[in-house]
Amino acid sequence: LQAATADSGIPAAGAEVAFQFLHSELVSFLLREQLQGGGGGPATVQQCRAQLSKLETMGFRVGQAYVEKMTKDLPRFRDDLEIVKFLCKDFWASLFKKQVDNLKTNHQGVYVVIDEKFSLLVPMARGKQYLDRCHLYTAFPCGLIRGALTNLGLRAIVTAEVEELPRVKFQIQLVQHSA
Amino acid sequence: LQAATADSGIPAAGAEVAFQFLHSELVSFLLREQLQGGGGGPATVQQCRAQLSKLETMGFRVGQAYVEKMTKDLPRFRDDLEIVKFLCKDFWASLFKKQVDNLKTNHQGVYVVIDEKFSLLVPMARGKQYLDRCHLYTAFPCGLIRGALTNLGLRAIVTAEVEELPRVKFQIQLVQHSA
Repeated sequence: LQAATADSGIPAAGAEVAFQFLHSELVSFLLREQLQGGGGGPATVQQCRAQLSKLETMGFRVGQAYVEKMTKDLPRFRDDLEIVKFLCKDFWASLFKKQVDNLKTNHQGVYVVIDEKFSLLVPMARGKQYLDRCHLYTAFPCGLIRGALTNLGLRAIVTAEVEELPRVKFQIQLVQHSA
Repeated sequence: LQAATADSGIPAAGAEVAFQFLHSELVSFLLREQLQGGGGGPATVQQCRAQLSKLETMGFRVGQAYVEKMTKDLPRFRDDLEIVKFLCKDFWASLFKKQVDNLKTNHQGVYVVIDEKFSLLVPMARGKQYLDRCHLYTAFPCGLIRGALTNLGLRAIVTAEVEELPRVKFQIQLVQHSA
């Protein structure tokens, strides 16, 4: 086998696409599992919460491990804001091939992060009928963000809001912030 | 937010690492689920098979979708060998940041693909004690390969063998091959 990809001119889909597909598959899998477990009837609130919590936990662990690897040779961050900016720029770019579109803060430990075209929502962005499943698609990324921040020393509560696909607004509320 | 990653000099971990972590998390998740479901006792053969089959199916679907995206602007492949070479070079490089190390064929529809340092096995490559769990870590990639080939028009049976971590040998047996 000779060297290929670099000079083959093939448009590499890129591993971030595979990551996106794998996430999508994971959500579908948990959804199917829930439907099977519920005997075909509508899922109870408890069942839904359990699935969301599983996704959030997986996101958390991936976020922790990933940021650990990303930052192992970096100098320490100066403050909370620097950490959140790192998340919005480098972390985001490396996972989602773009930075976030907007970052706001009240300077009291609350950060609002907006991504106008969030890659993990793109597969389902074709119709309004999916809006009610959005929480399933944001649980993992919420965990991802929380895991990343935890690894960098910040405890946070992370929630997501989707009004129009594939736009997502994450709210990060730092617990015992230093600023 | 200004442009970052490109000129920040930060060693990007790369989305393929996130893919690897997410896969690892998925395996652990299914393992935990199995342990909980089994009431703490050792898993039955049926339970193990069910988990492997879930992983294989997820791999299959990701492989299909991913190769669809990778090849949508490419000309048709000439024959089976060209497809398998594409798999070993471009597909592999884009997902695992390296090509396979060895490809052999008997020219009768059987291909043996060897990766000396298979990235999805790297997280567990630290000790021999994990060797007995290898099938859990190769089920998804076997599905991934099968899905990729299916999307390119080749039905195949894909199995994996791990003698020493993180080396893996995949055997691809084409069903009704054209060569």
